[in-house]
Amino acid sequence: MLDIKRVLREEQPKISAALEREVEALPAAARPIARHTLLAGGKRLRPLLSAHMGRLFGCAHPDIYAIAGAIEFVHMATLIHDDILDNATTRRGVLAAHKVFTPTAAILAGDVMLAHAARMVAHIDNTFIAQRFAEAVVHTAAGEIDEFTHLGNINLSYEDYLAIITGKTAWNLRIACQLPAHYAGAAPEQVEAAAVYGLELGIAFQIVDDALDAAPESDTGKPSGGDLRERKCTPLTRFYFETLSEPDAAVFAEKFAAGSFSEKELDAIVVAMREKGLDKKTRDLAEPHLAKAKEALALLPAGRERDLLAQVPDFIKNRGN
Amino acid sequence: MLDIKRVLREEQPKISAALEREVEALPAAARPIARHTLLAGGKRLRPLLSAHMGRLFGCAHPDIYAIAGAIEFVHMATLIHDDILDNATTRRGVLAAHKVFTPTAAILAGDVMLAHAARMVAHIDNTFIAQRFAEAVVHTAAGEIDEFTHLGNINLSYEDYLAIITGKTAWNLRIACQLPAHYAGAAPEQVEAAAVYGLELGIAFQIVDDALDAAPESDTGKPSGGDLRERKCTPLTRFYFETLSEPDAAVFAEKFAAGSFSEKELDAIVVAMREKGLDKKTRDLAEPHLAKAKEALALLPAGRERDLLAQVPDFIKNRGN
Repeated sequence: MLDIKRVLREEQPKISAALEREVEALPAAARPIARHTLLAGGKRLRPLLSAHMGRLFGCAHPDIYAIAGAIEFVHMATLIHDDILDNATTRRGVLAAHKVFTPTAAILAGDVMLAHAARMVAHIDNTFIAQRFAEAVVHTAAGEIDEFTHLGNINLSYEDYLAIITGKTAWNLRIACQLPAHYAGAAPEQVEAAAVYGLELGIAFQIVDDALDAAPESDTGKPSGGDLRERKCTPLTRFYFETLSEPDAAVFAEKFAAGSFSEKELDAIVVAMREKGLDKKTRDLAEPHLAKAKEALALLPAGRERDLLAQVPDFIKNRGN
Repeated sequence: MLDIKRVLREEQPKISAALEREVEALPAAARPIARHTLLAGGKRLRPLLSAHMGRLFGCAHPDIYAIAGAIEFVHMATLIHDDILDNATTRRGVLAAHKVFTPTAAILAGDVMLAHAARMVAHIDNTFIAQRFAEAVVHTAAGEIDEFTHLGNINLSYEDYLAIITGKTAWNLRIACQLPAHYAGAAPEQVEAAAVYGLELGIAFQIVDDALDAAPESDTGKPSGGDLRERKCTPLTRFYFETLSEPDAAVFAEKFAAGSFSEKELDAIVVAMREKGLDKKTRDLAEPHLAKAKEALALLPAGRERDLLAQVPDFIKNRGN
C-alpha cells in the first residue's frame, strides 16, 4: 500500500522550494518575515492536496503549483496576522513572526503576502479560479472576524462554531482541492466533489486541532490551553464547561469571558479535560466530516492519486495521537 | 467653465452610495468598522477619477463603479492598517477606527476589505484588470513596508522617498485611471497615458500631503508635525534638517531617529518650517509631476471629461491653500 506519510515527506521539499521562489519574488522588506514563517515549517497540507488533486485529473502544470503556492501564502499570512491578534509567542515551536520582527512589520508582511497571492492567481488567467480564490479569502477573513466577535462567549452554539471554522479554516482547504480539479479540466460535478472533499477535511482538521489544545506542549509545539487563554470557545471548552456544577460553571464562564485563568488553573483544566476524555470526545466530532470527505472522494476517478487522498482523512483523524 | 469642485461635490453622493452598498456586502462583523471609515469622509478622489476616465472613453458601465469601489476599498483598508501602525488617534478629524473599535478588529476589518475588493474585481471577469489590480495592491503594500523600513532615517534620499510614495500612494491612483480606460476600450497607448496621468497625480498628491504636515490642524483635521512624530522622512523634514547648524542637525537627527521630540519642540519646528517657507518649497516638488500628468492627459481624446480632468492637477496643487 502507498503510504501517505512517506509521500508527504517526499513532496514537501518540492513544495517548499516552490514557496521559497515566491518568497524571493516579494518586496525585499517583506522577505525575512515571510521566510521566517515559511522556515518555521508546517505540514504543507494545502499545497500537497492541490498537487495530488491536479494529478488525479492528469495535470501537473506549473499553474497548479502557483495555485497551491497562493493558497499556502494566504494561509501563512493569516497565521502571521493571527499570532499578532492572539498575542501568541510561539508558532510550531519557534518564535512567532511579530516577536522576532515587530507587530508593525508583521501586519505589513501579511498584507504583502495576501497581495502577492492574489497576483499569483491573477496571472493564471482563469476567471473561475480568480473568483473562487477571492471568495475564499473573504470567507477566511470573515471567519476570523466572526471568531473574534465571539471571543469569551462560553455559550457559543455548535452551529456558530462550525460557521467560524468553516470560514477561517475550511474554505482555504476547499479551494486547495477545488481549483486544481477545475484547472485540470474535471467535469463540474467532479469539481464540486473535490470542493466538498476539501471543505469537509478542513472542518475535521480544525476540530482535531481544537481537540489538541488539551495535548501537552511537547506533542504539539504549542502551549496547551491556548484556546482557553485566548478565550476561544471550542467544543473542548464547551464539553468541559458542561461537566461543571452550577456554581463552578458560573466562575468558569466569568474567568473565560475575562481571560483571567491563572497558569495553574489552566494546567489543572487541561489535565481534567484529558482525564475526562473530552479531547477524544471533541475529536469524535470530526468523524461525520471525515465520512463526508470520503464520500465526496468516491465520486472522483479511481487510481493511485485517489488512493493517496483517501488516506488523508485518517491522517487528520490521528493527528497528534 | 466647468468647475471641478462643483462636479466633485455633485458626484460624491453617487460614489458614496455605491461604496455603502459594498460595505453592506461585507461580513457583518466588518461592517461597522468599514462604515466608520467610509463615513469619516474623504475626497473620493480615486473613484471620481475612475468615473470620469471611463466617461472620457464613453463608458459609464456599472463595472467602472465596481473598479472604482474596489480601489477605494483598498485605499480605506490601507488607511485602517496605517492608523494602527502609526498609532494615529484621529483620521479626517474623527477618531481612527482602531480607537473606536480595537486594533484587532481593525486589522481584521482591513483584511476583509482587501479581500472583498479583490472579489469585486474578480467578478468583472477581465484578466488585464485583475492582474493590474493585484500588482497595484502589491506595490501599495510594498511602499508601506519600505516606508516602515526607513522610519527615523533622516538621510533618506529623495529617490528612495519617491520610490516609497510611488508605491504607497501613486500606484493606486495609477490603476484608478488606467483600468477604466482599459475597460472602456481605449487604445493601448491611451491606456498607458491614463496610467501615467494617474501615477504622476498620485506622486504630486503625496508630496502636497507631506507639505501639509506643516499646516495647522484646523486646516487639515490632522495634528501638524505628524510625520515628525511618526519618524517619516519627507522632503519637508529634510529641507528643515538642511537649514540647521551642524550641532543642531546632530541633535535633530538623534531625536528624529528616536521619535523623541516633545510636543513643544514639534510646535516650534512646524512654525519654523512655515516661516522659512519650506512647506511651499516642498509643494513646488509636485510641479514636475503635475506637468507630466497634464502632458499625459493631452494624449487623451478632447472634450468635457478631459477638461474636467485637466483641472485636477491644479486642484491637487492648491489643496489646503
